[in-house]
Amino acid sequence: MPEPKPEYYVGVDLGGTKILSGLFNTQLHCLARNKISTKADRGPDAVVKRIARCVQDVVDEFDLTLKQVKGVGIGAPGAVEPEKGEVIFAPNLNWTDYPLKKNLEKELGIPVFVENDCNASMLGVYETELNPKPKSAVGVFVGTGIGGGIILDGKLYSGFNHTAGEIGHMVLEVGGPKCNCGNKGCFEALASRTAIFHKITSAVKNGQKTLLLDMLDGDLSDLRSGDLRKAIRKGDKFVEKVIEEAAEYVGIGVANLINVFNPEVVVLGGGVIGALEDEMMAIIIETAKDYAMSGTTKGLEIVASKAADDACIIGAAVLAKKMAK
Amino acid sequence: MPEPKPEYYVGVDLGGTKILSGLFNTQLHCLARNKISTKADRGPDAVVKRIARCVQDVVDEFDLTLKQVKGVGIGAPGAVEPEKGEVIFAPNLNWTDYPLKKNLEKELGIPVFVENDCNASMLGVYETELNPKPKSAVGVFVGTGIGGGIILDGKLYSGFNHTAGEIGHMVLEVGGPKCNCGNKGCFEALASRTAIFHKITSAVKNGQKTLLLDMLDGDLSDLRSGDLRKAIRKGDKFVEKVIEEAAEYVGIGVANLINVFNPEVVVLGGGVIGALEDEMMAIIIETAKDYAMSGTTKGLEIVASKAADDACIIGAAVLAKKMAK
Repeated sequence: MPEPKPEYYVGVDLGGTKILSGLFNTQLHCLARNKISTKADRGPDAVVKRIARCVQDVVDEFDLTLKQVKGVGIGAPGAVEPEKGEVIFAPNLNWTDYPLKKNLEKELGIPVFVENDCNASMLGVYETELNPKPKSAVGVFVGTGIGGGIILDGKLYSGFNHTAGEIGHMVLEVGGPKCNCGNKGCFEALASRTAIFHKITSAVKNGQKTLLLDMLDGDLSDLRSGDLRKAIRKGDKFVEKVIEEAAEYVGIGVANLINVFNPEVVVLGGGVIGALEDEMMAIIIETAKDYAMSGTTKGLEIVASKAADDACIIGAAVLAKKMAK
Repeated sequence: MPEPKPEYYVGVDLGGTKILSGLFNTQLHCLARNKISTKADRGPDAVVKRIARCVQDVVDEFDLTLKQVKGVGIGAPGAVEPEKGEVIFAPNLNWTDYPLKKNLEKELGIPVFVENDCNASMLGVYETELNPKPKSAVGVFVGTGIGGGIILDGKLYSGFNHTAGEIGHMVLEVGGPKCNCGNKGCFEALASRTAIFHKITSAVKNGQKTLLLDMLDGDLSDLRSGDLRKAIRKGDKFVEKVIEEAAEYVGIGVANLINVFNPEVVVLGGGVIGALEDEMMAIIIETAKDYAMSGTTKGLEIVASKAADDACIIGAAVLAKKMAK
């Protein structure tokens, strides 16, 4: 009997500044990656052409053609109506009611499936990392912002307007630091990469010493999460303290979600967790269990995702594999 | 054709200090009410006998016998396994894994159904107050504490260990006032009746003047939510300010739930809302919409329940009617 023909999927992470694409095989291994800037200011039709190019290039990189790709999945930053594949509302792109699936299928000639980016990430974690599959799981993705993905009864839960899981804008500290959304004290104003970097650069402006300045030749504008890990491992107590505080806030945010959802599993993911898992996870788990009501944590697992910055492209590929006939 | 025989149900609100019972007809109108103290320190078997007495008395009050009652529903303060009718964990009663259904059925000889008290309240609101029925709704019950009830996909959602909806212990203000649970800054430490009364009595101890002192002959130990309404209507600016602040916290708590669940309806209930609806609801709605992410509030309704302190007995009667064959 001949080997079954190999199948390929492309997962796309559509962000406000960057488009990432990944080519995946049936086993959901990533075979190639590509990244280009979004250029959202050029308008949605121009962005669709850029997504198409980012997909074509990653396929070509692995010496394949689009005809060999069964489907493209996209995680988009906003509220998505998955059946029509429309982006209802994406403030970072300035899109409203945009038919992404239809227009990208026109460009590529192969099936396209669209989800919210955090939902896609959570779907990816659920399908590729969690075994056995829990009935309920909440994903907390800590990167530039903080987003959530919710699995209830084994399925993605997206709410009335497809906007559920906006956990980054859960208020944890009334009157706390200003958030990009205009409010104060949001989870992501306290514990996202943006919040962490802001705390560090403000302190440095006020004369705080840190090894980061030597490591980056005095210029913190190119700071990355990995630099924080390196500084901590070299003994930088200031950076260690900032990361400890951020981990405590993440733990409190996780406890709020545990108290509200009483899930079976909480998954921590995103670039910050990917880079600082060893420094943050123990504090996150301890704080979360401390703030969660007794009875809610029995049998609960709090785990770190392995996917880090790739969570969305993996999840988008999972989506494509699930949906493409 | 003869009239169908009338059917009756009893709903019970089992609290840490009081047991309330209500007799209901098929239309879920309350025909009689009864209240006795719980005496939780006497142990669960003694409390079951007291529940039985509270049920028998309300039935007798309306000149009926237990044989004419098709079922008894109970809302219990803790985690409940509804199929077996066991109270898994109820800190206010000091109960663990107690077979309430089985033992009360032995006392009464009629079917008993058990749910968590806030879940029962939410079920009652959903079945008797919301029309048309939304697919998703979140109930926020503000009384001595703050509890939540969650309807997703038209059904009660109770989570992995039957403890979902512990919204009173969602942290809104890291480092804020101490909560009975041992943590700080919980929703119920900021906006429950307990928190409101604590704020008022502390201020009075520090010399704050208020009409409440005249109204209650200088003794605030018997303060009730209704007194606050009277004081505000007589022009007490201090009490008005305390209630405004509490309403703002409730609004922020509601916004957190909107951002996380993106529900179709949020219902505010409980004794505090019942007594102070006119004073609080407009502020709650305005604050919630202010803190909720744009896109999540489209078509959302935020309403006050009519049930006030009766929410749990009504909901427990709804449960009995749904379950009793």
